[in-house]
Amino acid sequence: MKFVVKTWHYKRFICLLEIIAVLLIGADMKKRYINVGIIGYGTVGKGVVKILEENKKIVIRKIGTPIHVKSICDLVPIDKSELYVKNFHNIIKDPEIDLIVVLVGGYEPARTIIVESLKEGKNVVTANKAVLARYWDQIFTTAQIYQRSIYYEASVGGVIPVVQGLSEGLASEEILEIKGILNGTTNFILSEMTKNKVSYEQALKNAQQAGFAEADPSFDVNGIDTANKLAILASLAWGGWIKVKNISVRGISDLNIEDVLITQDFGYNIKLIGSAQKTRDGVDLSVQPCLVNHENIFVTVENEYNAVMIKGKNSGDVLFYGKGAGQQPAASAVVSDIINLSKFIVTNTAGIIPDVVYDNRKKIKILPTGKSRASYYLRFTILDKPGILSKIFKILGDFKVSIANLVALPDIYNKDYGRVIIITQETYRQNLEKALKYINATKSIVKSVPFSMKIEN
Amino acid sequence: MKFVVKTWHYKRFICLLEIIAVLLIGADMKKRYINVGIIGYGTVGKGVVKILEENKKIVIRKIGTPIHVKSICDLVPIDKSELYVKNFHNIIKDPEIDLIVVLVGGYEPARTIIVESLKEGKNVVTANKAVLARYWDQIFTTAQIYQRSIYYEASVGGVIPVVQGLSEGLASEEILEIKGILNGTTNFILSEMTKNKVSYEQALKNAQQAGFAEADPSFDVNGIDTANKLAILASLAWGGWIKVKNISVRGISDLNIEDVLITQDFGYNIKLIGSAQKTRDGVDLSVQPCLVNHENIFVTVENEYNAVMIKGKNSGDVLFYGKGAGQQPAASAVVSDIINLSKFIVTNTAGIIPDVVYDNRKKIKILPTGKSRASYYLRFTILDKPGILSKIFKILGDFKVSIANLVALPDIYNKDYGRVIIITQETYRQNLEKALKYINATKSIVKSVPFSMKIEN
Repeated sequence: MKFVVKTWHYKRFICLLEIIAVLLIGADMKKRYINVGIIGYGTVGKGVVKILEENKKIVIRKIGTPIHVKSICDLVPIDKSELYVKNFHNIIKDPEIDLIVVLVGGYEPARTIIVESLKEGKNVVTANKAVLARYWDQIFTTAQIYQRSIYYEASVGGVIPVVQGLSEGLASEEILEIKGILNGTTNFILSEMTKNKVSYEQALKNAQQAGFAEADPSFDVNGIDTANKLAILASLAWGGWIKVKNISVRGISDLNIEDVLITQDFGYNIKLIGSAQKTRDGVDLSVQPCLVNHENIFVTVENEYNAVMIKGKNSGDVLFYGKGAGQQPAASAVVSDIINLSKFIVTNTAGIIPDVVYDNRKKIKILPTGKSRASYYLRFTILDKPGILSKIFKILGDFKVSIANLVALPDIYNKDYGRVIIITQETYRQNLEKALKYINATKSIVKSVPFSMKIEN
Repeated sequence: MKFVVKTWHYKRFICLLEIIAVLLIGADMKKRYINVGIIGYGTVGKGVVKILEENKKIVIRKIGTPIHVKSICDLVPIDKSELYVKNFHNIIKDPEIDLIVVLVGGYEPARTIIVESLKEGKNVVTANKAVLARYWDQIFTTAQIYQRSIYYEASVGGVIPVVQGLSEGLASEEILEIKGILNGTTNFILSEMTKNKVSYEQALKNAQQAGFAEADPSFDVNGIDTANKLAILASLAWGGWIKVKNISVRGISDLNIEDVLITQDFGYNIKLIGSAQKTRDGVDLSVQPCLVNHENIFVTVENEYNAVMIKGKNSGDVLFYGKGAGQQPAASAVVSDIINLSKFIVTNTAGIIPDVVYDNRKKIKILPTGKSRASYYLRFTILDKPGILSKIFKILGDFKVSIANLVALPDIYNKDYGRVIIITQETYRQNLEKALKYINATKSIVKSVPFSMKIEN
């Protein structure tokens, strides 16, 4: 706290110098234009330049000043050769540049670029969720110390203005819960499986053909991308640093078309949901495929769309919905960040009041995974012999897992086996896991490892 | 424009004086606290004070400064007598007050309070949509001249941060369309009719009992409240002043439970939708009950919830959803405005860059109502005689209204009459209106005035 006060005095001193400069040389306090440097010139970077060029008038109307792309850095030379800079340090050190747009993926050099830019007094816009989630502490502490801003709307939910919605739109709220479909690739795959009744592998191929899955989709399908975004929203909501390792993560690659079809008959669709919920014993954090009933608004979120539901104490549920993947939506979100941040740059106030409330001494209590409570869908492939069902019920009961709904069916693929579908009452996850492990380990009950999936309320 | 430059120089001069004061007397440039005056102390006002008291810590973390309610004005004395001020002028003229929260309904004295507050150099937060829609020009011109801010998130969509979403979240977007369920009362009534199959009158009573309709609900049910909110969003989106009188408005009070039930069989729910769409020939503006198909996300918006869909050129559809009525959600939105605006007050920059891009010379072209194109649901109660149907088809055809779908049924109430339900192809509204008028005027075709309703895509 003391340090902040000190930098404030330093800031005031700089401000005084600026004013004296104004008196002496008549320079205007209001900037005549905003100089932007872009580092990373892939599809999103190209989209950003295009939108800025197309919307010059909108920009001037909004901030009274043009935004000028001064330099662009990329590994390889670009079409706009007059703007090309080979070494990103030349952009970071350029005293004429006010704002640096970091569109480099992965951890390095993205982290170095962001931190060094802030230290050089630049404001930053980025779409890189991985680096934010992993280096939240370093990045926002640096931003506070150097009194600069970092905007990152495009990092979560594509075009959806949920970062701003959470930090400003719901500024007065004590946040109780955040729940979202945060990854366009997996949502597209799940939509394909549900609508076209195709296997996971086929649905993934369709997503790749439609341009919504990369050649290596592992970060998306294993849930890590969703976890990065959830970590960002949760850190923002509760003013501390919630790490990806605090989140229990399960992806969608082990999903079976059979479960998609069965659960549809029960009145559910499957969605990959990132969820952060305040409980008395800590924040319950998970990314997992969940059953969502057909009246839930998340069911209408299809294909590459994302949606985030935020529950505040007074607001109740507030939902934000829009395209979570694609070049244009991502570029649009980046340009909105550039415009909104420029409003502060114009008046020399960017970063004076931190945009992200972050106190690195604040420890947020995390609920242990096993203490999480939910209802579950269970599927057992059982040996078709008398007495098996009662054994399963007995074990579930011993571990305090109560049954809400049950169906037993013959296995359509092999008449020696039967299938049992159970919907449980709300139960502790650790109890369920122990029960399933026990059932699996007990001889002559199940043919394969029991399958379970959370049911979303 | 010249005037703005001049006031900017004036502002700079004031800023210089402030700096000199800092040098001389060591006062801090950053405000130690924000003083708020509240005018209008009904349920929302009480909620605002309560949330500010409960969330003192959140506020200090967000803006580094406490927010202090200094005075409250209401027609009658209030429980917090030490804060009570009888005459609102005393709040407006109080030099210690930075921000005035205007929670007075109707046009006057709300307009006077807002305009005079801005002229006295106060920043304003209000939830009054009627006064904004009617005096947009005066209010935002005054705000620009006096370089002060007015925030009004609670005026549209209750707790949903759609004003900010539109002006900042989608800052980079050329807005193509805005479409919303913007009134909690009517949405509650329509949900009741749909779910419980009750008449309009009964549904209204239920809404009143649940606290979601006032004793006199006419502004809600006749669509005026929705039109006020649509006018605000459209004015904000296109940077000019779109007036309520530019909007074709139809409410829900003539809705029949019969139509609710029939349209459900066709796969639709009825929702009161405010819509503003950019077309080549002007902005198409309407408030009317519409048929929404069961896969549309608007169908999941039930009871007092609101939702707004905004389509941008690059973003595609972005939806905001949350509670549109109720004390706590409205108060929450007002407090978020107070916090967000205070961030600028703290650094003495509120209003330097106008929050609302508004140019009073900009004329926005409005599409004449008749030129609006849509598909329609038509219901005719016909005399049960040979040749009637062909007469109806002939007249529709003469006016270039094509039929997409048709069902003829006996009238369950009277066997002498039949009912014909038609879904049309997309058609000009003026053609449809002429055709219906002609059918109604032609002897021996229909028993009562034909009923029509727009079908939402």
